[in-house]
Amino acid sequence: MTVRATPPGELADEMQRVADDVDAAFDAFLPVPTDARARLVQAMRYAVIGAGKRLRPLLLMATAQIYGVGREHAIRAGCAVEAIHTYSLIHDDLPCMDDDDLRRGRPSVHKAFDEATAVLAGDSLHAFAFELLCQPATSEDPFIRAELVRALAQASGANGMAGGQMMDMVAETQSFDLPTITRLQQLKTGALLDAAVEMGAILGHAAPDERLHLRGYARDIGLAFQIVDDLIDHEGDELKAGKALRKDEAAGKQTFITLLGADRAREQAHMLTQQAVGHLAQHGPEADMLRALARFIVERDH
Amino acid sequence: MTVRATPPGELADEMQRVADDVDAAFDAFLPVPTDARARLVQAMRYAVIGAGKRLRPLLLMATAQIYGVGREHAIRAGCAVEAIHTYSLIHDDLPCMDDDDLRRGRPSVHKAFDEATAVLAGDSLHAFAFELLCQPATSEDPFIRAELVRALAQASGANGMAGGQMMDMVAETQSFDLPTITRLQQLKTGALLDAAVEMGAILGHAAPDERLHLRGYARDIGLAFQIVDDLIDHEGDELKAGKALRKDEAAGKQTFITLLGADRAREQAHMLTQQAVGHLAQHGPEADMLRALARFIVERDH
Repeated sequence: MTVRATPPGELADEMQRVADDVDAAFDAFLPVPTDARARLVQAMRYAVIGAGKRLRPLLLMATAQIYGVGREHAIRAGCAVEAIHTYSLIHDDLPCMDDDDLRRGRPSVHKAFDEATAVLAGDSLHAFAFELLCQPATSEDPFIRAELVRALAQASGANGMAGGQMMDMVAETQSFDLPTITRLQQLKTGALLDAAVEMGAILGHAAPDERLHLRGYARDIGLAFQIVDDLIDHEGDELKAGKALRKDEAAGKQTFITLLGADRAREQAHMLTQQAVGHLAQHGPEADMLRALARFIVERDH
Repeated sequence: MTVRATPPGELADEMQRVADDVDAAFDAFLPVPTDARARLVQAMRYAVIGAGKRLRPLLLMATAQIYGVGREHAIRAGCAVEAIHTYSLIHDDLPCMDDDDLRRGRPSVHKAFDEATAVLAGDSLHAFAFELLCQPATSEDPFIRAELVRALAQASGANGMAGGQMMDMVAETQSFDLPTITRLQQLKTGALLDAAVEMGAILGHAAPDERLHLRGYARDIGLAFQIVDDLIDHEGDELKAGKALRKDEAAGKQTFITLLGADRAREQAHMLTQQAVGHLAQHGPEADMLRALARFIVERDH
């Protein structure tokens, strides 16, 4: 794996632009009220502004870009996916879950605030995601709005992210085989990455066969993403990662590394990336950002 | 307050019918998967099937009934509101929140399962609510689906239920005046009761002026509901309530009873009920269920 701290020029610029846009959007969406709810909204803002790679909004916006979707629409859908991702990090970090004190290089929400505020800030970001999607500013077409809600809700519940997190809790006491670990990761991380791409395609009115290919792309980069996450967990730098590493190994959990070994896992991630880029064959330069993102996902070191 | 254990005939029948329908619907919606997510879905089912007064689905369905909405549509929207209400109970009962071991007469979810499963079961029910609403089976009209999502998402986040819960946490250490307690309760409990009525009106394509009156009805019964909740907390029976009582008083929290006294609070609840029924003046017998529900809300003893 080529270890590279920063992505190449154009992607790096777009990552910075999306990060800035997402921050500015959340800043505008979440004014701090003057009543006793102030602490809640402060916790939401702490979690969601100024941190994270914004990979999900990037995927959504890069997909929407293929179809020339207005950036002002795509950014709202991107913020919705990021709000769901962020709520899941807040809840996963809780003492009763993964008990992590550090997230994105800063104290996790229950350390910076308190546990009750963390639960409620997660719940509020969860609701906020759907509030964003169903407004006409996201899409003037109510069918598109309802479809966006469907894609995101399906990806985040028991048949998606939360289900994957449950499997991950069970993995602490049960030994899973490779197909089960793959399924776990597909739910826990893959489902929301899939949804980001799907939501970009929904906003773009992509044709059914294009959506099929984009889904293939999303599946492949989702799995590659998780394999690289395991590699970073295995051999990465905690400072760069901004969170505690090697917890899975210490807990005796099966990962792609324990099951495949680091070398085969790395090969697998590269193979998946090539396969992902192959799914974009029918698109021209308008899909270059998605191609660059696929490569970034395997080449990142945090 | 007339203490009456069961509501009068027709309402009692409808309550039983809605409770049965909601149970049957959730039973069908939430099959237990055969993989490691089984425990998660079991916890969701434990929380959401076979318990609770189903007041929110009742309000929604009684409102939809005014406009002749098909029961198969209304029940889905009713289940969505109930899923949100239930997730909030699961999270509120957590040790870091209100720390309640008993709910609806049974061990709360984190006692019957564990804390991590309770967090995830709540999160999954939260997502499930929106998954239900955005499907064509809820309404063939995507505008209606998006509107249902909007009403429910706004009512449950930082500007609704979760915000009210935050204020309630702050109320443990700060002394609030009557307007602030009223606002707290409007957010914590009222917002979701409002949403139930609003969603019934949305399904029924109610005209703007009708929605205004229905909103007035919902506001009034929401506040009456909370005053009666405080009365039950003050003088009720834990066995009937199915949960621990007098915790607010023990914690030194301001309630409608500490602020108004039990007698004035009771008067206020009755006055609000009359006012609520007044908002239905333009409707005939098709609104009788809403009228009966308003009376039930002040007359209930649990």
